[in-house]
Amino acid sequence: MAYEYHYRRKVYWQDTDMAGIIHFTNYFRYMEEVEIEFLSSLDLDPLKFAHKHNIWRPRVSAQCDFKKTVSFGDELDIHIWVVKKGRSSIHYEIAYNHDGEEVAHGRLVIACVSKTPDGVMQSTPIPPVIDEALQVAPFAEVSE
Amino acid sequence: MAYEYHYRRKVYWQDTDMAGIIHFTNYFRYMEEVEIEFLSSLDLDPLKFAHKHNIWRPRVSAQCDFKKTVSFGDELDIHIWVVKKGRSSIHYEIAYNHDGEEVAHGRLVIACVSKTPDGVMQSTPIPPVIDEALQVAPFAEVSE
Amino acid sequence: MAYEYHYRRKVYWQDTDMAGIIHFTNYFRYMEEVEIEFLSSLDLDPLKFAHKHNIWRPRVSAQCDFKKTVSFGDELDIHIWVVKKGRSSIHYEIAYNHDGEEVAHGRLVIACVSKTPDGVMQSTPIPPVIDEALQVAPFAEVSE
Amino acid sequence: MAYEYHYRRKVYWQDTDMAGIIHFTNYFRYMEEVEIEFLSSLDLDPLKFAHKHNIWRPRVSAQCDFKKTVSFGDELDIHIWVVKKGRSSIHYEIAYNHDGEEVAHGRLVIACVSKTPDGVMQSTPIPPVIDEALQVAPFAEVSE
Repeated sequence: MAYEYHYRRKVYWQDTDMAGIIHFTNYFRYMEEVEIEFLSSLDLDPLKFAHKHNIWRPRVSAQCDFKKTVSFGDELDIHIWVVKKGRSSIHYEIAYNHDGEEVAHGRLVIACVSKTPDGVMQSTPIPPVIDEALQVAPFAEVSE
Repeated sequence: MAYEYHYRRKVYWQDTDMAGIIHFTNYFRYMEEVEIEFLSSLDLDPLKFAHKHNIWRPRVSAQCDFKKTVSFGDELDIHIWVVKKGRSSIHYEIAYNHDGEEVAHGRLVIACVSKTPDGVMQSTPIPPVIDEALQVAPFAEVSE
Repeated sequence: MAYEYHYRRKVYWQDTDMAGIIHFTNYFRYMEEVEIEFLSSLDLDPLKFAHKHNIWRPRVSAQCDFKKTVSFGDELDIHIWVVKKGRSSIHYEIAYNHDGEEVAHGRLVIACVSKTPDGVMQSTPIPPVIDEALQVAPFAEVSE
Repeated sequence: MAYEYHYRRKVYWQDTDMAGIIHFTNYFRYMEEVEIEFLSSLDLDPLKFAHKHNIWRPRVSAQCDFKKTVSFGDELDIHIWVVKKGRSSIHYEIAYNHDGEEVAHGRLVIACVSKTPDGVMQSTPIPPVIDEALQVAPFAEVSE
């Protein structure tokens, strides 16, 4: 059981743009990585859920505020935690820190869905094994 | 003078992931493209602003809700409009439509900044030429 | 029947890196786009081949030489042509031109494969409908 | 002094496409990462060379052969080594291994250039500090 995870991520040259800073789209790439790492740390393999249990986790919403510019060679400490669980959705927040300062702050909502035989995605409850493994963080402040 | 722009964008194979749908990070890549196309349609070249006038436009915030899955070969009609102008910021909304239905909806806030000689970015008012070219859309509903 | 295709592609801000030029990885993204556009222009939908006929087209080899730097706002005229067909493989060359000058030159080899029920990819001959639609360009010089 | 480097890299969901395998363009992203990690391991910071010494390292050529499909959750052991040094160029090979088997094999050539005041890139000799730090691997077989 866990409600948070920390992930260190170096910023590569290809993550920058001609303004000399991380292109904003990459914060969403890092967001994806940290959620995968969080689930993997709990032995929750998204691929097994997809192929064995027909549970997929499309993103419902993703958001990021960019506060300070970060560039090539910098290391980010990316912190993800659970802020809310719905019947079929999980709400995360993500803090991106560099040198002890928050440089960006994200929100991510995923939904559990099953695919019907003709490929349509239908909402489905969070499977028990995920529901039991992921807790809402005690310090979470849900912004409605 | 304009307050909106439409851009058609095909979804390529590389935009999909193993769930068979557009990976969510790509909506932010399309968001970037449509803003560039909008400014270009008004003869506002971001590069000229950067290099000649020392005006850069980092993103302050980006957000997207994903409503329907879209996949390879689909065409998106991406509609961007201005919802608000601050002293140094511009707020956009972006609707992603496929077959006449909204499949995703985004929000983007950019700020105008100048770089000091040592590379620090400082907020600066929207330059008059941009301020005059971009209007708030009459149908904009600003969500606070 | 065709042996070549031309595709115009604008270079976006996110395609650049902090050196102020296109990051080299993006030439491979454009390579992917132009092959898809070429096939689409011949009514050969890769998705139909994948899902209806169990024909997938993984890349066997991709290569690009970078001759001149290109940057944001530039337009590329991307020219693809067939240089060779094997039993199950198709060899392309790709010329990237800007302002009438070749700025990069690529090579791409794809193979036709089928997936076995357990997901293994096995080489399979080029399907007749693709074989008939794609010709080797008369001006092709195959480099061994 | 060194002639090789090993880098482990997990394959993320966003690196896959709808065929369920790594999209080929990502091998070039990993290629970029491993070269950066190699240089960093030798205390050769590309950014310092760029901004302090006006030495940039654009890619002259990149190539990759794809031998086995790899997918989400797999770990790659990426091995880079120096195969040749020219006056201003460095030639690398890159082997991508998964479970002890080579799944892809790449080649990368970079050039050292300086930017003139008007932004033109001109070839320049490999700086001594880089030339002394990077050796040709004793096992290198240069393919002409």
